[in-house]
Amino acid sequence: MVRITTSGQFTREEVVLALRNPGMPLEGLRYPITPVGMHYLLTHFDVPYVDPATYELSVGGLVREPLVLTLDALKARPAVAMPVVMECAGNGRALLHPRPISAPWHDEAVGCAEWKGTPLGPILEEAGLLDDAVEVLFTGYDRGIDGGVEQSYERSLSLEEALREGVILAYEMNGQPLPPQHGSPLRLVVPDWYGMTSVKWLRSIKAIGEPFEGVQQAAYRYRSSEGDPGTPVTRKNPHALMAPPGIPDFLSRVRHVRQGRTLVEGRAWSGWGTVERVEFSPDGGQTWDDARLGELLGPYAWRPWSYEWEAREPGEYELCVRATDSAGNAQATESDESWNRGGFGVNAVQRVAVLVGATETD
Amino acid sequence: MVRITTSGQFTREEVVLALRNPGMPLEGLRYPITPVGMHYLLTHFDVPYVDPATYELSVGGLVREPLVLTLDALKARPAVAMPVVMECAGNGRALLHPRPISAPWHDEAVGCAEWKGTPLGPILEEAGLLDDAVEVLFTGYDRGIDGGVEQSYERSLSLEEALREGVILAYEMNGQPLPPQHGSPLRLVVPDWYGMTSVKWLRSIKAIGEPFEGVQQAAYRYRSSEGDPGTPVTRKNPHALMAPPGIPDFLSRVRHVRQGRTLVEGRAWSGWGTVERVEFSPDGGQTWDDARLGELLGPYAWRPWSYEWEAREPGEYELCVRATDSAGNAQATESDESWNRGGFGVNAVQRVAVLVGATETD
Repeated sequence: MVRITTSGQFTREEVVLALRNPGMPLEGLRYPITPVGMHYLLTHFDVPYVDPATYELSVGGLVREPLVLTLDALKARPAVAMPVVMECAGNGRALLHPRPISAPWHDEAVGCAEWKGTPLGPILEEAGLLDDAVEVLFTGYDRGIDGGVEQSYERSLSLEEALREGVILAYEMNGQPLPPQHGSPLRLVVPDWYGMTSVKWLRSIKAIGEPFEGVQQAAYRYRSSEGDPGTPVTRKNPHALMAPPGIPDFLSRVRHVRQGRTLVEGRAWSGWGTVERVEFSPDGGQTWDDARLGELLGPYAWRPWSYEWEAREPGEYELCVRATDSAGNAQATESDESWNRGGFGVNAVQRVAVLVGATETD
Repeated sequence: MVRITTSGQFTREEVVLALRNPGMPLEGLRYPITPVGMHYLLTHFDVPYVDPATYELSVGGLVREPLVLTLDALKARPAVAMPVVMECAGNGRALLHPRPISAPWHDEAVGCAEWKGTPLGPILEEAGLLDDAVEVLFTGYDRGIDGGVEQSYERSLSLEEALREGVILAYEMNGQPLPPQHGSPLRLVVPDWYGMTSVKWLRSIKAIGEPFEGVQQAAYRYRSSEGDPGTPVTRKNPHALMAPPGIPDFLSRVRHVRQGRTLVEGRAWSGWGTVERVEFSPDGGQTWDDARLGELLGPYAWRPWSYEWEAREPGEYELCVRATDSAGNAQATESDESWNRGGFGVNAVQRVAVLVGATETD
């Protein structure tokens, strides 16, 4: 179903998706909490308008006591607020050869907002999951055609994942009501996982008796070929990014940095454990040195890191960074090491082209 | 200086610019005031961090009394809040043949926020423009390389334009402090003009004795060829857009609409006068019918319009819309009628591909 291209050029479809689905400009890494409007977005269909005043969430299916919850009822429940790194499963796709045709992410499909909402587990317990329930299905108000099928955007979680601590129904982002484009008035937030499972504009929650086999569930799988059933895309692979140092060229985005010392800073995360090591390379990955790690704002936040880089000689450099997590997962050196048909979970080391001059413009 | 391509495919540079510089998803036309995070953005270099607590604006050059104004001092001055349509001068560029290589806008480089700030004119009067001042230069904190030259982003206005009513120094967008990506803590807002002149992250204002000839002033000109000195890009040409009806296909963005009546809605604007007519075509521009016009929220806002479209037969349609303003300016039918080397001011009629079925998925 996924079209693949060997072209180094991009199709108009990819460009139009990029214009609708912004990444976080990487200078946004300076903020521990990504400001609204700098956080990445992937809207599969259109941003729907859902009136918060008349909003009702239905919780049903294989439960003893179906619930209908207004926004006020949801806000009256116990609340948690937490920074959560959100990353699109397709981040890095456009660096693959051949390239799957979809949103042409390079490195920027990420952000870390503070999401506030109410835990999902107690709501499911209150509704009372029946014994034959095996998954929980989350359906959004966003509607369109994908894979030739008309659908509402929907994804399921196993009971274990749905009941996990940290999974919330969020109604605030960065201390404000959810903006329309981030799922107003209510969205699911599933920490540690890639973003596709954090269903926006939540319409209903339904306990179901069979594993869900909808289009989006089938689409997000690691497949080596078209016939390969593959395995599901779930948690975020370890990933470190740097805020590109110096100043950019408008078109090429090549960085111009003054000779001497430059503090390179960034953030790193993993859905499989805590980031325990970040390494920096000034020479395209030939040599690596440990970066200094900072403190986490919370269990689902990204970890700040910094590295004092000394550019002794003018010339061209390729700066790289890579993370290792507490589960021992590391980043690939080349994107194509993690090639798969959908272009998911690609987490090769970031590469930033830099020109070092005696002055910034040399 | 501008590279031109005849390729129907796009370069990686264009894609990376699109990922950093989002358009407004066109369903955002439903909002009279575009929410933060749905408004288009063009950041020439990086989003700089400027601390609002220590911020100072300097007003100098050919003035009797140079001023240094803190944010509190600016907020203590008379304030105005007004909806202003902001549109990138490059909107529509990617529909040109051949195509200038830059931000690959199609239709979406637009938004209408409520900007609050203090009028510029009284500040210039207080500083006291000297008789030999001919222009006012606005310099931002954003810095980079463009056209081979290291620069701060800067643009000038003639005294007449700088002193015009409606030109403000804005510190709020939609009732909140400016977000980083829109120019925090202070930006210029010049209504009626294309966006390039509304300098963000304002560092200084300077009265100058010669017309400014910086890179950005030279770049934004209507040129027919490389040798053509051209004419400056100034006010926004008339432009109407519709929120695409029905539901989209994820990749192609083709719209699926059910047979029968559909209310098509959108907004229209012009920097040369009031929009006085909006016309809708269901057949790619062969026949046109007048849309119903709504009320303006203010002199610099966009004008809502609507059209009751009846799709009698299933099949493929191309929906178009065009505006005419009170100065008699109209939109081109084909993009290439307004071709110029920078791809500026392109305002051909919007074209939306629609599949009409007996049901949405037919």
